[in-house]
Amino acid sequence: MDPLDVMMSKEHVIPYYQPIFSADKQLVVGYEVLGRLHTEEGDKSLDWFFQDKNIPDEYRLELDDHIQKLALDEYMQTDQSAILFFNYDASLLIRDNGETFIKRLESYQSKGLNLGHIVLELKEEDVADYFYENKHFFYYIQSFGFRLALDDVGHNGSNLDLIAMLKPNIIKVDVAFMEDEEFPHLYSDVHQSLSMLSRKIGATLLFEGISTFNQLNYSWRNGGRYYQGSYLRSPHRFFVESDCCRKKMQKEFQHFIVYERKKMESQFTLTNELTTQLKQTMKTISPDDTFDEMIRKVATDCDRYAFRIYVCDAEGFQQSSNAEKSQDNKWVLIEEGRFKNWSWRPYFLENIVRMNIEKRGFLSDLYTDIERDERIRTYSYPITDNLFLFLDIPYNYLFEQEGLL
Amino acid sequence: MDPLDVMMSKEHVIPYYQPIFSADKQLVVGYEVLGRLHTEEGDKSLDWFFQDKNIPDEYRLELDDHIQKLALDEYMQTDQSAILFFNYDASLLIRDNGETFIKRLESYQSKGLNLGHIVLELKEEDVADYFYENKHFFYYIQSFGFRLALDDVGHNGSNLDLIAMLKPNIIKVDVAFMEDEEFPHLYSDVHQSLSMLSRKIGATLLFEGISTFNQLNYSWRNGGRYYQGSYLRSPHRFFVESDCCRKKMQKEFQHFIVYERKKMESQFTLTNELTTQLKQTMKTISPDDTFDEMIRKVATDCDRYAFRIYVCDAEGFQQSSNAEKSQDNKWVLIEEGRFKNWSWRPYFLENIVRMNIEKRGFLSDLYTDIERDERIRTYSYPITDNLFLFLDIPYNYLFEQEGLL
Repeated sequence: MDPLDVMMSKEHVIPYYQPIFSADKQLVVGYEVLGRLHTEEGDKSLDWFFQDKNIPDEYRLELDDHIQKLALDEYMQTDQSAILFFNYDASLLIRDNGETFIKRLESYQSKGLNLGHIVLELKEEDVADYFYENKHFFYYIQSFGFRLALDDVGHNGSNLDLIAMLKPNIIKVDVAFMEDEEFPHLYSDVHQSLSMLSRKIGATLLFEGISTFNQLNYSWRNGGRYYQGSYLRSPHRFFVESDCCRKKMQKEFQHFIVYERKKMESQFTLTNELTTQLKQTMKTISPDDTFDEMIRKVATDCDRYAFRIYVCDAEGFQQSSNAEKSQDNKWVLIEEGRFKNWSWRPYFLENIVRMNIEKRGFLSDLYTDIERDERIRTYSYPITDNLFLFLDIPYNYLFEQEGLL
Repeated sequence: MDPLDVMMSKEHVIPYYQPIFSADKQLVVGYEVLGRLHTEEGDKSLDWFFQDKNIPDEYRLELDDHIQKLALDEYMQTDQSAILFFNYDASLLIRDNGETFIKRLESYQSKGLNLGHIVLELKEEDVADYFYENKHFFYYIQSFGFRLALDDVGHNGSNLDLIAMLKPNIIKVDVAFMEDEEFPHLYSDVHQSLSMLSRKIGATLLFEGISTFNQLNYSWRNGGRYYQGSYLRSPHRFFVESDCCRKKMQKEFQHFIVYERKKMESQFTLTNELTTQLKQTMKTISPDDTFDEMIRKVATDCDRYAFRIYVCDAEGFQQSSNAEKSQDNKWVLIEEGRFKNWSWRPYFLENIVRMNIEKRGFLSDLYTDIERDERIRTYSYPITDNLFLFLDIPYNYLFEQEGLL
């Protein structure tokens, strides 16, 4: 279809609304407004029109404004409790200093529109192109009271600095790509870092493109508060009942929670098992034993759990050698690790303080061991107030058990 | 100076070595090789030469190769325990399929060079430009056994997806910019997310451009294992003694550790204070009290610590209203929060399980509250096995105390 044809049929261009659901209330929290062309063969998506930067700016501006007007007219008839997401091309926004968009909103503000319920949605890639040259503009448009969403984060990269500097209210991540993904845990690593950044800067994570149960679960597990996608509801010509997916979401969440709790219980069981074992082993250590003799005994007793064992003091200085399992499953002592300091590692000191206070062992999160390039967990155990044992658990063991990966 | 002049003086182009220190051993772990031009007025940096993409590729390739050869010759005279970082332009690397670089290395491999001690250092921005079109090339060059470092991460953005997919061995972050930075905590948020990603994928974080005590502290606090910068040692014509900064680093680390432990103790003190208070308050709650009456009493008793209080069950469903402090410091009940579910929030279920096991309250990390857009901490307390109290502590309170920010 020709862009000009679309412009000629402007009176047939209508807004569609894709519901966005909130995890807290399991209700529709808002809608993304999408352009559709009403034809005799049905309503057709106009995404291509708005994404094609070869189409003259004037056309796209005019049609954007047209859809916004229709959507706002329809929205004003509702109780206006939902939030409306409008897509916009960052370059068009900058071109006219945001004037078209802001004027359109202001014309409704006088009729009672709460700007706090309007979300301006920009693609990360576009913003990345313009942000550094136009910082003040981006801060300026955030002063009007509507919210800012960064769309397509992670599509061609998740730019942490941009996100931290722009401080959008909402970060949209598309999970549609996950269908044919080879490295699911790589994405999970990325999205967990993104979730952490969102938490730190106070942005809401929205996962879109959710078309399967697994994607909903993934979104929930990775800190998503808002969800959008055909698994919940496809775009629709009209607004929907806000509780249209409530029962479904509540049922699924129940599953997620049960499953996550089971995983945590597995981790707790392993922690307990190791703590019991360590207490036992510690009784066999005589005060005359060197640290290396100590870890040798621990290695023998914990053979099935561990591939590396060492002892540190409260300041992170390693006091023993490394006991490491060789390829043929024999334990060897590697002296080189002695007196290394580990206090710079994330969570290290926090962990030491926690062990000191709670007088019990802990299991770490899943992370990649640099030496072996495999995902492991570390169990740590307080021997005394100033001496701590670390036991690295290999991927093989974690894989064989339920709930440890 | 003209690029051609540099080429004409090739015999005066020499390698300089900037030591890179490891936090674990406080020793020199390696060197970044830098090109310098020896002149009568002293040795001059050639960074401009290698960064100017208008200079013909052949020139840069030739000079790179020249410096690598000299550096490797000098390196082969040492015990070869250090690792050597060679900068390379990603576009030059792709242009000849890595051949010049790989051939150069292989010519030394036969003389005993351990490729595991060689690091190929590419700028993130360049890699981002080429990675998606040349994925196989980037995986191919990682198969030779040398290590890969991604340089200048966060200079114009830290691309999480790129980092996760490329899986470099080393991630270099420049902290030089921090001198004149308005939002230090924004960067800390970014670098903590980056640190988390590095941990997850098994990459080593290297902070470069360290020229002050504060920058060294910042690097240490944010999970940096390797450090580089004039505060430790400037580039030098020759290799240095590996323990040249050991005493200095050990002294500084001691300070860092003492300071961090103090901060953790402050957090522990506040946790204890709140737990004592909550235990006291809970005694005044009668079994007939509603949840809202309960949080009203807690609000009165914990007035100085809190601005928001609510109660959830073990599955994250909020059982009470929100008690919130209004602008004039009066507590109001906001019913709207009731029956919201919070299980999707990062750390939520983990925290519930922890409270259940340890039967005590916890203080969260510092994060930004979405409603108030201010940095807060949340204290959580197990009332029963299935009922948990959450108390949000405002920035003001945290700011006034020592060690809580």
